[in-house]
This record gives sequence, structure tokens and C-alpha cells, in this order.
Amino acid sequence: MDTAAVFTKPAITPERQEFYDRLHTKHVAPLWEVLGRIIPAQPTPEAIPVLFRYDDLRPFLMEAGRLLTPQEAERRVLILENPGLRGQSRLTQSLYAGLQLILPGETAPVHRHAASALRFVIEGHGAFTAVEGERTTMSPGDFILTPSWTFHDHGNPGEEPTVWMDGLDIPIVNLFDTSFLERPEEEGQVDRVPEGDASVRYGSNMLPVDFTPTRPSSPVFNYPYVRTRETLDVMHRNGPIHPSHGVKMRFVNPATGGYPMPTIGAFMQLLPKGFSGQPYRSTDATIYSVVEGEGSTTIGGTRFDWRPRDIFAIPSWAPVRHSASLESVLFSFSDRPAQLALGLWREQVPVAGL
Amino acid sequence: MDTAAVFTKPAITPERQEFYDRLHTKHVAPLWEVLGRIIPAQPTPEAIPVLFRYDDLRPFLMEAGRLLTPQEAERRVLILENPGLRGQSRLTQSLYAGLQLILPGETAPVHRHAASALRFVIEGHGAFTAVEGERTTMSPGDFILTPSWTFHDHGNPGEEPTVWMDGLDIPIVNLFDTSFLERPEEEGQVDRVPEGDASVRYGSNMLPVDFTPTRPSSPVFNYPYVRTRETLDVMHRNGPIHPSHGVKMRFVNPATGGYPMPTIGAFMQLLPKGFSGQPYRSTDATIYSVVEGEGSTTIGGTRFDWRPRDIFAIPSWAPVRHSASLESVLFSFSDRPAQLALGLWREQVPVAGL
Amino acid sequence: MDTAAVFTKPAITPERQEFYDRLHTKHVAPLWEVLGRIIPAQPTPEAIPVLFRYDDLRPFLMEAGRLLTPQEAERRVLILENPGLRGQSRLTQSLYAGLQLILPGETAPVHRHAASALRFVIEGHGAFTAVEGERTTMSPGDFILTPSWTFHDHGNPGEEPTVWMDGLDIPIVNLFDTSFLERPEEEGQVDRVPEGDASVRYGSNMLPVDFTPTRPSSPVFNYPYVRTRETLDVMHRNGPIHPSHGVKMRFVNPATGGYPMPTIGAFMQLLPKGFSGQPYRSTDATIYSVVEGEGSTTIGGTRFDWRPRDIFAIPSWAPVRHSASLESVLFSFSDRPAQLALGLWREQVPVAGL
Amino acid sequence: MDTAAVFTKPAITPERQEFYDRLHTKHVAPLWEVLGRIIPAQPTPEAIPVLFRYDDLRPFLMEAGRLLTPQEAERRVLILENPGLRGQSRLTQSLYAGLQLILPGETAPVHRHAASALRFVIEGHGAFTAVEGERTTMSPGDFILTPSWTFHDHGNPGEEPTVWMDGLDIPIVNLFDTSFLERPEEEGQVDRVPEGDASVRYGSNMLPVDFTPTRPSSPVFNYPYVRTRETLDVMHRNGPIHPSHGVKMRFVNPATGGYPMPTIGAFMQLLPKGFSGQPYRSTDATIYSVVEGEGSTTIGGTRFDWRPRDIFAIPSWAPVRHSASLESVLFSFSDRPAQLALGLWREQVPVAGL
Repeated sequence: MDTAAVFTKPAITPERQEFYDRLHTKHVAPLWEVLGRIIPAQPTPEAIPVLFRYDDLRPFLMEAGRLLTPQEAERRVLILENPGLRGQSRLTQSLYAGLQLILPGETAPVHRHAASALRFVIEGHGAFTAVEGERTTMSPGDFILTPSWTFHDHGNPGEEPTVWMDGLDIPIVNLFDTSFLERPEEEGQVDRVPEGDASVRYGSNMLPVDFTPTRPSSPVFNYPYVRTRETLDVMHRNGPIHPSHGVKMRFVNPATGGYPMPTIGAFMQLLPKGFSGQPYRSTDATIYSVVEGEGSTTIGGTRFDWRPRDIFAIPSWAPVRHSASLESVLFSFSDRPAQLALGLWREQVPVAGL
Repeated sequence: MDTAAVFTKPAITPERQEFYDRLHTKHVAPLWEVLGRIIPAQPTPEAIPVLFRYDDLRPFLMEAGRLLTPQEAERRVLILENPGLRGQSRLTQSLYAGLQLILPGETAPVHRHAASALRFVIEGHGAFTAVEGERTTMSPGDFILTPSWTFHDHGNPGEEPTVWMDGLDIPIVNLFDTSFLERPEEEGQVDRVPEGDASVRYGSNMLPVDFTPTRPSSPVFNYPYVRTRETLDVMHRNGPIHPSHGVKMRFVNPATGGYPMPTIGAFMQLLPKGFSGQPYRSTDATIYSVVEGEGSTTIGGTRFDWRPRDIFAIPSWAPVRHSASLESVLFSFSDRPAQLALGLWREQVPVAGL
Repeated sequence: MDTAAVFTKPAITPERQEFYDRLHTKHVAPLWEVLGRIIPAQPTPEAIPVLFRYDDLRPFLMEAGRLLTPQEAERRVLILENPGLRGQSRLTQSLYAGLQLILPGETAPVHRHAASALRFVIEGHGAFTAVEGERTTMSPGDFILTPSWTFHDHGNPGEEPTVWMDGLDIPIVNLFDTSFLERPEEEGQVDRVPEGDASVRYGSNMLPVDFTPTRPSSPVFNYPYVRTRETLDVMHRNGPIHPSHGVKMRFVNPATGGYPMPTIGAFMQLLPKGFSGQPYRSTDATIYSVVEGEGSTTIGGTRFDWRPRDIFAIPSWAPVRHSASLESVLFSFSDRPAQLALGLWREQVPVAGL
Repeated sequence: MDTAAVFTKPAITPERQEFYDRLHTKHVAPLWEVLGRIIPAQPTPEAIPVLFRYDDLRPFLMEAGRLLTPQEAERRVLILENPGLRGQSRLTQSLYAGLQLILPGETAPVHRHAASALRFVIEGHGAFTAVEGERTTMSPGDFILTPSWTFHDHGNPGEEPTVWMDGLDIPIVNLFDTSFLERPEEEGQVDRVPEGDASVRYGSNMLPVDFTPTRPSSPVFNYPYVRTRETLDVMHRNGPIHPSHGVKMRFVNPATGGYPMPTIGAFMQLLPKGFSGQPYRSTDATIYSVVEGEGSTTIGGTRFDWRPRDIFAIPSWAPVRHSASLESVLFSFSDRPAQLALGLWREQVPVAGL
């Protein structure tokens, strides 16, 4: 059902047009001229389905690696732009995504911002992200947070170029005009906390007896792939398998059971070899990164074949079907926790007639 | 502190420019070229401070009343556009506001939408809003809700033109691409529930013994001015007075103690005669409607004098000072509950150096 | 189903008895000897159904009024003891109830305790309860709180003896060994806050813009009967009527939508003239006070006729049926919020076979 | 400060005594005669500090093993009774504790009850607890739940006698008269779910994407010691150490971040070798089981030396000091989550003057 079925724009007469023109000069506008556009009968995203082949993007990253240092660039990132949203630095209507490269021996300076960020590791071992003075070593498939207003930096003391996907809520922060950014008072974030401390302290199904959360995001900031993969395996073996999602887990803030950050939810799913999913849709436009396997995703009629390290985006409310020719693992993230908190999230499964 | 102090954009060399151009064709963009713009060091709203004089707007409303029926227009509303956001149907970055006119004998058809709406009555007695089959009669100063996905309509069986301010979260709903709109299956929303039922049933500091909320918004949908005014009077008499806000109350969902709707908070404040407030700022851009009195508000250096029924908008993070030459009452609304839920809200009081 | 159907105690042999005797000297005991008693198959309250006629109790109160001052007694209260729990100062297993008398010109000293208390006014006008320095005048039918750890006192500047029912969670506080009691550092609680302030400030479907609850109980501490009665009337008129409860409301903490105190819930219900309710039961033993009307309540097979000011108690899980020959209003309270918080509450409606 | 300092009981005159006697026959009692006892100025537990040596208890367990089967006994448990609460089947005012023995080849039948239970493994490998059809193998130091109203059974297919400490909230359930107990409709709880499923599914800092909790207790029901011990080690290494508690963690429901069950909290703490703690007290009476090490705990002036497998109990509000001559690990549990939910919990650290 589209908006036209609900509402018909009134005819424009010369008298009306003259009226509208006079209104215009006073910063006033007739609702009925825009109603169908600003309150559509169902989501009408400008974002379109799109897939980025990692093999296409990697040479650009390496070229950027030659052209600028992270100090010059602050962060050496290539933004993935949705072709439906050119020049807007976003991959879905509400989320930013990019690929960040850090070469052996490089560091990226410490800062913090109101925007929440995730780092999903695509390639390379040995680089680190540090959050509030604790480093975590990054490996492919690791899901890492740098939550809102936490000081963070990155470095690569290893020997391989490291690439990760950044996911940020920049469009959300900017809709609310709540951006802040600052550097620490002293240069250089001291490694105050031994690596791994947060995962043990907060992520072992225990919490320190006097722990009180000081921020709404997860105190755990690395969810290593080795553990995620093992969990998916056990779940696959024990069943059941969801007809649309395969085996799908959401990452959790262990201090609340909720999403790791208030604006961004993240998921990991396993599609068994030969999986052919039923159609599904939800209002949270979602960005996928392929970790393992081979398969395809049909988004609103268009089929996208994917291989490891490819990235694709699904607009809000678009019907989606996943298939896998090999056992596959897909990481994804979306603004679902924000939509849930605001009472806006919907899903439909299966989508009839598809 | 502005972003330039935090981050300096790298110089553009011919080699780099050529690289950026190649990226562009692949829907990829260098972050460092836009970083300062998309992650500013503090809010940089495009919305500007603005005041609309009701005396200027009222003739337009009456003219619209002659040119279209509510049936043609669905809702006969003149949108108040922020001069910094022309053509975007919004008064702040995240909120829509408009003035709706309903003439004696008119009705506006039943529909529901994912967007949440408030109606703040400016002028006229005897019109009604009906929510899920219960009417409430509207009087100036009343704060009325039509929450997300509730069927609602309006009518004016009285003898006076009625005007109210509509406030909606349309930009938020559209950022998340979660708009839905529909009509009821049967035309005409029957008056199934006696007027006043919801206010008594849910708003008397009691709840039905088996009540379980079915939606995240308040089950009370009219907060009448007669009661609000009396509350402000008592609070004023009993003190204390806030140095920036005077006496300021927020409307509450009595089933949770939270805001009436998940995306929009609403407030009513009394400024005593002679009040001269200290500067304050917060990240929730706010729309004001003057109910009673006479005074002025200085927003980031510009002073706006106001009289009853005037409407003005304060951008995010702009320093604000209220003064009142007569005892004054101001209604206001903002996206504060959304910002709080997403961990984004900040305030500063008083603002140093202003 | 009783426990015997689930578990049969093993036979006691001489060898076993000798073993048990040896255990006994070491403070050790065999579970199987007591299992059926300490884990019954369903609630087996020692408390029994009981009704106290106010006409019988009032002369005792007046006699107590002659024998002691409130200063001597701290509080001049006659405890209503459940005949099944003699000497235990409780009317149900978990709740204390008593009748407190305060004569014209008397005051009862300021103190505070960890126990939460309610005061339900039975007789007399003009007395007051003060909580944290704010007085509220007491009238029959008013539901008044003195929450955990709030300083409170009482006085009667009027001309009538005033009697109210006290309801406290003393057995709960003592099971957890968490009792505290103290006097203020300075004698005499100054009337710091104008009467009625809390009701307006927190109970008008608004809250002060910066309000943050400092205790888990309601900031409103008087729910006047005049408003409660009007609410019940409207609810009765608008319907529907619950087949077991008539029109039944629970009092609410307006800052949360939850119960007024964490351990005690309170309710007011209207039974229409001629009402004959269906059987119902729940695990929260409940104490009733009759406000208006005439009727009877059948508790587990025994019928209790009641008139205004009578008090009766229903044990946990006992089937209950209310009937009313005149339109009646019943106040009641129980430990329901504690049972809900601890995951223990159950109800059954209607109770089959009754 | 004791109650006498707050309140003095009025003198008993012959006239008063005669009055009290008449009241007594009507199930009415004067508050002032019992006030100091039922509302003490601070906790006055009847429970006393006590330590049970495992070496003393073990022979009794083995003797019970010869005298009854689990089928006869339902559960072969020796209750540890507090000497201050003889015959009441409790080790603190609100908690039951016992030692359960299951011999090789034995099983204990399936049932479920409203009471919540924990099982803390003391001795033996190879036995299992099954919860809702999923087994978990028990090893010393494991903390295992059988939450309220979950079907559970036990068995020992191994070759060693297995002993664990049971901790239940029976006194709480009985204060509220909310006990229920039943057997499954079909005998024998099928092993429907592979062992380890719950720990992986709910305890890996992820949750199934569509998971909605169906009960207030943790979906994880085994917290294995091997992981707990490793966590304590890391925390010890990384610091800081609490001056009273050493390194102390609370077990967590990963779906909420709260306690594993609504009525019982459980903790594991490491005291470094040579630790000498500062005095501390809290209102939650606590039961300890020694896992490793050697040391002593001084409770309100009495020192208790402990070795592995010993069990001791600390009454509410008693000052406590732990010392360790060897690196030690202590498990403990209490009713803290219930006290927190009911607004009753307090702690004091350090306790002055001790």
C-alpha cells in the first residue's frame, strides 16, 4: 500500500499557488503539499541495496596508505557511501560505514566523540584498539566497540596491514545536533590497564561486587571471533535453525542484557551449507560484512552474490532472503536499539507473497 | 572550542585530488575531507533561532480556511519552517511544528501513523481531538497527545475557529525510515469511550488493578491547562525558583513516570513577574509557545520579545536567557526523551561567560 | 493437591531415630523429616480468615486513650492479631495491622524506621500526619504513606478523636533482619513545607523538570478519599466491571507507575449494589477495611458479613467471593509488590469448583 | 545505639494489666508492650555466628547414605541449623542451607517448587543436576542454579560420592505463604537438551536474536569453578584489592546484569595470602563455603578459623573481618537481591571502632 492510496494531494489552483508563494516568503508552508512525502504510508528509503566487493576496495585503501599518514588524516578511512545518498557520508539513512587502514608501525591519535563506533576486523593481525587506556589486539572477525565519549586510539605494532570496518551513528548524532569531539588534556593515552582486563572483569558472567555502570554502553569492548564462532557452532549443532536467519545471535552488554551501545546493535549469524532462507524484513536498515563462506542475498528483488570480506547494505523494510552454498558467517549491524527505545521498530516474518 | 582546534584537514595535492575523484566514481569518499563537518567539536545546528508572531500567522490560517477543507487537505496545517532549514518541513533539526486550523462544523479524517504528535491549543474552545475512540474537548493551553500508531481525528462542533500547534517527530521517524500511515478499516471512528475516561482511569494517581501498558506512550492524552496553571501557581508560591527556568515542570506518563511519548518531551514553565534568568543551554533544540504574559528570550546573543501565542525555536546548545516583564507561562517541547534514551543529552547551567 | 500426594515421609526406624538424635546435638537435621512442612505443595498459611468489628474495637481504643498518652506509648496502637498467629503481632503472615487513636490536642513524637507504613483513616477529621516536614490533614478514607526511613509524626489539633488503621511490613523487615529506628537529631519536626505541596508537585501528571527520586517509595503521601471515590464512580459508570473485583484500582507511585512502597500495595474497589462476585484467589494475603456500604465476603467457605469500618483478613491462596447488598467501597492492602519483585506472586481467576 | 535509647516501655499498672488481659481475649494487643522488640533500633538477629567443620559433617552424610535412598528421602540432605534458630530449618533468618549427598548410581526424582535453590559443589566429580531437561556435570566449586518453578533432578553416574551445599529461600517463600511443589506429569525428565547448551546460548556475551526471558532468573544455570577461579586470578593480578573483601565478584544473570535469582545472590572472593581485611557489615546475613586456602573470619568479636569445605554463617549487621594465611577462595550467598528490591539493604565499610 503506498501513500497515494491513503491521501490525494489537492489540486493546485492559481489562487492557491499565489497563496503558497506568499507563505513561502514568511517561512511557512502548506502541509498538504508535502504530506505524502514526509509521512509515507510505509518506509521509502532513499538508500538503495548495494554491495561493495572487498577486492575492489582494497587497492584504494593501499593507495590511501601511500598518500597520507593517520596523523594527517586523524583516521585513514574510506567512507562507503550509499549510491542513493551521494555526498552524505552514510551507507544507510542513519548509519555511517567506512574501511579503515592502519599500516605496520602506525598509530592513530587519541580522541573521543559523542558518536558511538564499532570496529569490525576484516583483515590483518596484530593491530590494537585502546579504549580508556586498555588495549585489545584485533583479529579478523572480532567485534570491537569504542563507545560514546570514551577516549580511544589505534595502533599497529604488528607486521601486517590491518583493515577494519568502522560503523558509526554519525547521522543520528547529527539529527539530534549532539556532536562533541575532544582530545585528552595530555597527549598519549597511557596503557593504564592490562590487556584483557575488561573482558574478564565484566564478561565472565560475573561482575565486581560493587560495580555500577557509568555509561549506557557495554563495559566489555572486544567480542573475539574465536568465541563467537564456537558459539555459532554449538548453536548450529543443538538447533533450532531460524527459517530466515539461520543461527543468529546479538551481541550483549553483560551489565544489562541489552545492546552493546544505545544506538547500534550488532549480530553474527551462521547460515548452514545449502541454507535457503525465507523472506524477512524489518525497519532497521542493516549493514553486513561477510566473514566466511559463499552465498547470496536477495534484497527486494535484486540478488547480490557475496564472498568473504564483501560488505552490503539492506535498506529499511526491504524484503531479504539469504542463501548459502557453503557454510557462511555474516556479521551485521543496525540502529535497532535506537528504534526499539523510540518505539519505532517493526519486523515481518515471513514476508507474504515473496 | 571549534573543530579546527581539534583537527586540521590535510592539504589537497593534485595527486590526492585525482585519487579522490577516482574514489568518487566508486561511491567511496575520504573521511578526512569531511571529518570536521560530520563530527564537529560541538553542535553546529543549521537551524537558527527564530520567532513567529501569531498575529502575522493568523491571517494566513484564515485564508487557508477559505481555500481548502480539511477533507481535501487531510489536515489544514501551515508548517513553520526554520529559515536555516528551508524546504525541509522542520522547525528544529529533529522536529516538525505547524499550526492547524479547524473551523466550526469541520472534521478532519481518522488516520494513524508511526509519527508521534502533540497538539498544543492556541486559540478557540469547543473543538475536539479523539484518540482511539475517546474524544477530548480542547481549550487554550491544553497539552494533548496523539501517540504513535493511535487512530485519531479532530472536529469542531463549536462556534469558534480553533487553532493549535502540532509538534511531530517526523524528521526522527524519517531518519530511521520507519514511517507508516493508515486509515481504519471502517470509515469513522466511533465514539466508543466516554469523554474524560482516560484521564480518570490512568491519571488519578491510581491505575486499574490489572493494567498493563500496551504502548510506550502515556495512556492519558489530555493535560488540561486549568490544572497545569494551578500546579504552577502552587509551585511558585512554595518555591524554590530555578535561576534559569523559573518554575518548570515536565509532563509525565503516569504509567511510568517517564515522558509522555518516547521521542517528544513537553514542559510548562512559569516565569515570575520581573524574572531575569541565568544563561542555560542543552542539546535538545526546543520549540516554545507563549501562553500568558510578556517577556523576552535571548538566544545566543539575539533577543526575541514575545507576547501570548507567539512561537519561537531554540537550536541545540544555544545559550538561552529568559526574562519576564509580566508573570508569564511558556509551553515548550523537544526531543529530550529520545536524546536521553540514546545517551546523547547534555545540559550546562549556568553557561559561563554569558 | 496436598504435599502428601507428592511426597511420603520415610518410616522412622529405631536406627534412624537414634541417628536423628545424634544429628540434633550437632545442629544438623534430616530434611526428609520436615520436607512436607517446609515445602508444602501449595500455601498452608497459619493465618486464618478473621473479621474485626469496629464497634467491638472502638471502646478498647477509647479506654487506651484514657490509660496512656501518645508520649508514653510512642504510638497509641492496638495491634490486630491473627488468631492463627497469637503473640506474633501480625494480621497476616507478612503484615502487621493495628488501630491507632489520637485524641484532640495530642501529638505523637517524630521518628523514622526501616519499616514502611500506611495509615488508612477510619474515623475523625482534623488530625494530621507529617512526613519529612510536610503535614497532611487526615479524613476518613484517605490513604496515607509514611515510607521507609522518612521522619514522620502525627497530631490532632482538631476536636474529634481520630482513628486510623496502621499497616506495616514489620514481619518482612524482621525476616530480613533489617530493622532500624531513630529519632531526629533535633526534637520536633519543623513544618518546613506547606501542606499539599507533595501532592501538587508530584501528583499532577507532571514532575519538576529536574526531579530524581531519592527513595523507592512514592513522593506523594496522601491519596485523598474524595478523589478516589470520584474515580471509582467514573470507572463504574464507564465500565467494564471485573467479575471478581468489581471496579478495582491500585494506588500508584506517580514517579514510576509502580506501587507506592516496595513492600506494600494498596487498592480501593467499588462493588456495585447487588454485586455477587466470582471466586478468586491470589498468594498475597490481604487486609481489608470497609469504607462504605454493606455486604459479605466468603473466604474459603466461611462467610463474613461486614459494615463500614470493619476490618477483615484473607490468608494467602484462600478462595474469596465478595457480595454487596448496598453499593460498597473496600480498601485493601497486601505485600503484592514484594511478591512480584521476588517472582513469587500468583493469582487464579475464577477458582474452579467453588 | 539500642532501642532502649529510643523508646522506654511504659510502666505496667494493675489497671493497665487488667486492660491488656481483656484485649488479649479479643486478639488485640497493645503495641507499646512489644514496640521495642518488633521495631528494634538496629538488627537484632536471633541467628548467631556459627561454623560447621566439614570433617565433622561428612561422617553423618555417609551414615545417611547407608540409611536411606534418595527415592525414600526425595533429597538426601542434612539441614544445617543455626543454633539460635533451633528446629526452624534455617541457617540465617531468611535462608535454608543443607548438605546433599548423592552416591554413585543414585538419582533423585524430578520435581519443581516455588523456592529457588542453589547448589554449591563441595566434593566429588561426575554427578549431574538437570534443569528443564538439560544436564550439567558438577565439579567442586561449581555454582549451580535450580531456579524457582523449574523442573530439576540430580543423578550420579560417576564413581565418587558427591556432596554439595544446597541454599534455598524457603523462609522467604514461607513468610509470603507462596510455596508450591509439583512433579512433572510424566515421570522422568527426558534429556531433551544437549549438555552445555544454556551456557553457550546465553552465557557468551551474546543472546539469541529473538530471546525474551520467560522467568526472572538466569537462563545460565552452571557457573563452573574453572572459569571463576581464572577470573579471580586475573582480577587479583590487575587489581585493585578491596580493603575488606579482597577480590570479590557477584554471579550475574547475563540477560539482565542482575542477580541470578530474585531472592538469592551469590559471590566468590579471593583473599590474597596474608590478607587482613578491614571490618565491614551489611544487613544481608551471609553463608560462606570455603573452597581453597586457610584463614579466619572474625564475626562480631568471635574468631572462626576455617579450612576448605567448612561452612560458616554471618548474621545480619554483624561486623566481619577476613584474614588469610594462604591464598584463599570463599563462596558466599545471601538474600541481598531481595533486600535491594525491597529497599531494605544497607552496608557499612569500614565499621568504625572495630
